[in-house]
Amino acid sequence: MTSKTRIAQIGFGYWGPNILRAISSHGDAEIVAVSDNDQEQLAKAGRQFPTAALCTDIDDVIARNDVDAIIVALPAGLHFDVTKKALEAGKHCFVEKPLALTTSDCKTLLGLAARKNVVLMVGHTFEYHGAVRKIKALIDAGEVGEIYSIIAQRMNLRRIRQDVDAMWNLAPHDFSIALYWLNQAMPVSIRAQGFSHLPRPKPLADLTYLTMEFASGAVVHIISSWLSPEKIRKVMLVGSKKMVTYDDVDVESMVQIHDKGVDLSSVVTTDYGEYQTLVRSGDLVIPALRITEPLRIEMYDFVDCIRQGKTPVADGQSGLRVTRILEAASESMARNGAPIKFE
Amino acid sequence: MTSKTRIAQIGFGYWGPNILRAISSHGDAEIVAVSDNDQEQLAKAGRQFPTAALCTDIDDVIARNDVDAIIVALPAGLHFDVTKKALEAGKHCFVEKPLALTTSDCKTLLGLAARKNVVLMVGHTFEYHGAVRKIKALIDAGEVGEIYSIIAQRMNLRRIRQDVDAMWNLAPHDFSIALYWLNQAMPVSIRAQGFSHLPRPKPLADLTYLTMEFASGAVVHIISSWLSPEKIRKVMLVGSKKMVTYDDVDVESMVQIHDKGVDLSSVVTTDYGEYQTLVRSGDLVIPALRITEPLRIEMYDFVDCIRQGKTPVADGQSGLRVTRILEAASESMARNGAPIKFE
Amino acid sequence: MTSKTRIAQIGFGYWGPNILRAISSHGDAEIVAVSDNDQEQLAKAGRQFPTAALCTDIDDVIARNDVDAIIVALPAGLHFDVTKKALEAGKHCFVEKPLALTTSDCKTLLGLAARKNVVLMVGHTFEYHGAVRKIKALIDAGEVGEIYSIIAQRMNLRRIRQDVDAMWNLAPHDFSIALYWLNQAMPVSIRAQGFSHLPRPKPLADLTYLTMEFASGAVVHIISSWLSPEKIRKVMLVGSKKMVTYDDVDVESMVQIHDKGVDLSSVVTTDYGEYQTLVRSGDLVIPALRITEPLRIEMYDFVDCIRQGKTPVADGQSGLRVTRILEAASESMARNGAPIKFE
Amino acid sequence: MTSKTRIAQIGFGYWGPNILRAISSHGDAEIVAVSDNDQEQLAKAGRQFPTAALCTDIDDVIARNDVDAIIVALPAGLHFDVTKKALEAGKHCFVEKPLALTTSDCKTLLGLAARKNVVLMVGHTFEYHGAVRKIKALIDAGEVGEIYSIIAQRMNLRRIRQDVDAMWNLAPHDFSIALYWLNQAMPVSIRAQGFSHLPRPKPLADLTYLTMEFASGAVVHIISSWLSPEKIRKVMLVGSKKMVTYDDVDVESMVQIHDKGVDLSSVVTTDYGEYQTLVRSGDLVIPALRITEPLRIEMYDFVDCIRQGKTPVADGQSGLRVTRILEAASESMARNGAPIKFE
Repeated sequence: MTSKTRIAQIGFGYWGPNILRAISSHGDAEIVAVSDNDQEQLAKAGRQFPTAALCTDIDDVIARNDVDAIIVALPAGLHFDVTKKALEAGKHCFVEKPLALTTSDCKTLLGLAARKNVVLMVGHTFEYHGAVRKIKALIDAGEVGEIYSIIAQRMNLRRIRQDVDAMWNLAPHDFSIALYWLNQAMPVSIRAQGFSHLPRPKPLADLTYLTMEFASGAVVHIISSWLSPEKIRKVMLVGSKKMVTYDDVDVESMVQIHDKGVDLSSVVTTDYGEYQTLVRSGDLVIPALRITEPLRIEMYDFVDCIRQGKTPVADGQSGLRVTRILEAASESMARNGAPIKFE
Repeated sequence: MTSKTRIAQIGFGYWGPNILRAISSHGDAEIVAVSDNDQEQLAKAGRQFPTAALCTDIDDVIARNDVDAIIVALPAGLHFDVTKKALEAGKHCFVEKPLALTTSDCKTLLGLAARKNVVLMVGHTFEYHGAVRKIKALIDAGEVGEIYSIIAQRMNLRRIRQDVDAMWNLAPHDFSIALYWLNQAMPVSIRAQGFSHLPRPKPLADLTYLTMEFASGAVVHIISSWLSPEKIRKVMLVGSKKMVTYDDVDVESMVQIHDKGVDLSSVVTTDYGEYQTLVRSGDLVIPALRITEPLRIEMYDFVDCIRQGKTPVADGQSGLRVTRILEAASESMARNGAPIKFE
Repeated sequence: MTSKTRIAQIGFGYWGPNILRAISSHGDAEIVAVSDNDQEQLAKAGRQFPTAALCTDIDDVIARNDVDAIIVALPAGLHFDVTKKALEAGKHCFVEKPLALTTSDCKTLLGLAARKNVVLMVGHTFEYHGAVRKIKALIDAGEVGEIYSIIAQRMNLRRIRQDVDAMWNLAPHDFSIALYWLNQAMPVSIRAQGFSHLPRPKPLADLTYLTMEFASGAVVHIISSWLSPEKIRKVMLVGSKKMVTYDDVDVESMVQIHDKGVDLSSVVTTDYGEYQTLVRSGDLVIPALRITEPLRIEMYDFVDCIRQGKTPVADGQSGLRVTRILEAASESMARNGAPIKFE
Repeated sequence: MTSKTRIAQIGFGYWGPNILRAISSHGDAEIVAVSDNDQEQLAKAGRQFPTAALCTDIDDVIARNDVDAIIVALPAGLHFDVTKKALEAGKHCFVEKPLALTTSDCKTLLGLAARKNVVLMVGHTFEYHGAVRKIKALIDAGEVGEIYSIIAQRMNLRRIRQDVDAMWNLAPHDFSIALYWLNQAMPVSIRAQGFSHLPRPKPLADLTYLTMEFASGAVVHIISSWLSPEKIRKVMLVGSKKMVTYDDVDVESMVQIHDKGVDLSSVVTTDYGEYQTLVRSGDLVIPALRITEPLRIEMYDFVDCIRQGKTPVADGQSGLRVTRILEAASESMARNGAPIKFE
């Protein structure tokens, strides 16, 4: 492919401009059309991309012959319909997370993408984040040992949405991080609880807790909240050999590698039958990270996979896995925290 | 009562010396006996309290006529038997948390204390902590508004015990804090999950998650862990008017009062049916705390209640409530996280 | 003035693109020309501002009739010559800090600007910073009391320059902050020391210390360094009533207002003639700041002052004061730290 | 020496109890007498050391035959007289810092100690601190490279004294740390400035700045202040190979070793004659420290040196060096910051 890859974006709302700015700096990408139903946003897109066609009708964008790839940056509830049409029209698709609202819809999209032989990618930005990748490299090198547990907290007093709850809004990031670290293993069970505290017309959980258990023994706990005194974006990883934290808010010390653990060989028994297992607490290393903007790496991966016929890191399968988990978690939440098993 | 209150302590292990040092500085308290089955610990007690009688037999201590009050600082499994004997002998009793292992045992002790007309107190130190009390005062003054949720995390790589799991070891602190803030209301339900990762002869949960729901709508979530990269002792309180954090590790900014919340009157609807609730984010106030050692205030309360015939803040009822919750949480854990209702 | 203000920028190096991006978003500003002697940078400017004329010759830009105002974003050594030409051509001028290298040159520029009746502004961005202004408001409201001392630290391992030393590079920010807080009072004396540790062809101080004394009794101490383990941008203000810190690196708690001081009325004399003055340590308040990008506010001030015939906050006088101090500090440094008096 | 070393302490004020508690836990030390002119403090000593003789007359303590060693914990102005008498009486002496107020007095004491063949030690606790020693080991191993600069800040709103200024109160700690790291080299020059802001009968500097230059090129800058919004006890060490911070307030990350520096081989020249030296910014390591209480190690060193005829780390020479520097700094301060040379 020698000519440029021609990109259109559907949806230019809160996050959309960032995506388009990121992909537009790729030397082989060309922004040819932008669609949004808000005239003001559309005007903004026009100023930023003077040569792009602007339109309010989604179908017009999909129908264009001069478009190779479509970025779907719409509310989650619209992902399936629009992406389905775009895939049917033979367009490569990048869809914001979550890929779709149901497992079944995800499978339909994956099937279509396969049949049309186009790239289907989902916006799991964190799989492209330098900190997440650094920790993945540590795990792969055996430095962390067996993974005992992952505790992820994503809390912030911010935009409270009315289309999805806090879990659908925030937890997909943590699902994609945890699964990436756990080699894309699926959990064996999940339990979730959601609580809605804000008095509003259509209550949606603003605070959710969920726990996933894996066949390996790993346990993943995720707290998602829109109501929090502090901005928290933190993932703690406890392994048998080392313990690692990834704190996205702490820019100077984002990844912290603790040489800590339990020394199982030396057990001291005290009176009354207590015993004290000796703990090992060594140096703390804060690795230097060269953090290129993850969104840029992600969008470049989309362009490069289209041009080179490769499969992106955050492919449709990755999107399917996260939606399966979200779906099961929602079911557990509806059934008051009952455990949902994965086959 | 004009003469001094004569104190004996049973158990002089890990925490015992701190208790005895704290109470010994009370001008009206006199340490008359110490018991431990470890000769080395006993010798240490002797150096610290040269005039105290030292003995290895618990019954000898209880039988002494020159003892008014007994401090039970033994492993949790021995609390009931020893405290029962001491109460039967008419001694005022201070028992380390938890008061006993079962609700039924706690009730027996409460009944005995009432019959013998002696003080029964349990070691819920945090109810005497300046930070916890400061926040209680804020709540009582209506500054926090309706309490939406409390998230407590108590995690640290430290002494891993073999007599109780991480929840029994760590969560009682958070139970007593949460109940204190919630005016001693009992939850309507509790769900708990425990996970044991360390390969050891008799597995006990080293990581536990639990959620309590209250009739008021408040939700309390508690994470207890012996395996953690960082030492975390943090409680977050989300109210409708303000949000407060209590971080016991952050000595300089232990209590942080965030003037944050959701402005429910102003809702902005965006395209595609999303809406954005406006959040309010005002000043952060870190109140100056005059932190006297909580253990000292607690032990002084014991002496003063004995001498003045008062009921301590952390009385037997408080101990009973925490044990009821622990018992229910353990049942939930055994039943794989099933919700346990309180009548 | 109804038509747009036509802007040209001379110098499009490290910081230049930020200035131009900031001013270009002003609705009444239009970028008409950019000059740089590096073709690559010029091409970058062309992509960002497709309608602007690009040229390598500075004089060509100054000679243009369609230019109302010129931004001088060149190395400090070139500021005077270029700004002088631009003023002579009747252009409003914004000059990056420092305004010029000598007091005498600054005065020449101020005289020219007055004669030509154009705006002369210098790039003291911090006078437009929300945190700096918040503290200024506290001082003006009398909350800080008498200003005892200001300690400013600006240290970072970063671009080590060969045209100016660390003081000329970093301290102007702190000079402009301190003078702004001290109501533009000039110091009565200054002492400076500089140290060059890096082995390089033309040694320039990479670490400087300086102290300014003011008639009011205030003392300002400034540390500037290119060699530092940590990125530090912190100013501490000690007043008789309150103490304030401004930490530019701590995004969440940038301004901290400590209700701390010495209670002079209560003095406790101890044995041996020591005495202990009682200190007062009250609440800490971290005010919510609405930080709009200071650079944008600054550049908007330039445009607005041109259009409305006003004097900018960071006017030529402000630039003159900072250069006078830099000049005196350099003299002190050359004379091994000898105090330089200001008349 | 098989019997215990018999210790007396003169002065049981603010810090005195800590010293005596630390030394008393040494198995070969015995507290035989305590002197103070405050009856209340003396009573406190009596409760803590029931077998020690208590007296108000210093001479009585020195005259006792059952005393081998004397701890002088008095205000600085009394150090010389009391220590001189104690040495003349043949007692080993531990003197709180500073050893004496003048170089000449220090030399007198050193001469006496040599003639009497007794141990003379000064209370430079930080030379026994795990963090300071860890950094010393790094320096000795060549990991830090050439030492460029040390910046020490010791600031806190606390006890404001009337016998000595902030420098005499706080800077001796930093002098002893810097000299220890610099292999006990003496500076070639020192400059100091002091400022008194508090309105009080006898003004003493509450804020001091001083700079020492060493023959090696190292520069040490010390800020001492009684008036500070924050409690700061921090030393930054910049070397040619690594940069290290020691923050005594940050208990969890006290020593931070930054693999940072300037890569002198790769210099990039930009347009306009600027150049940009490439900086190297690698991992940050926070070593695990086993911090035993420094005061205990220090006091044990005193006992052990007496018993084994060894010279302590913080010997009289160390005390002399610090007093020489204090004396010169005071002279510089009196002469308005003029540099004082050391021969």
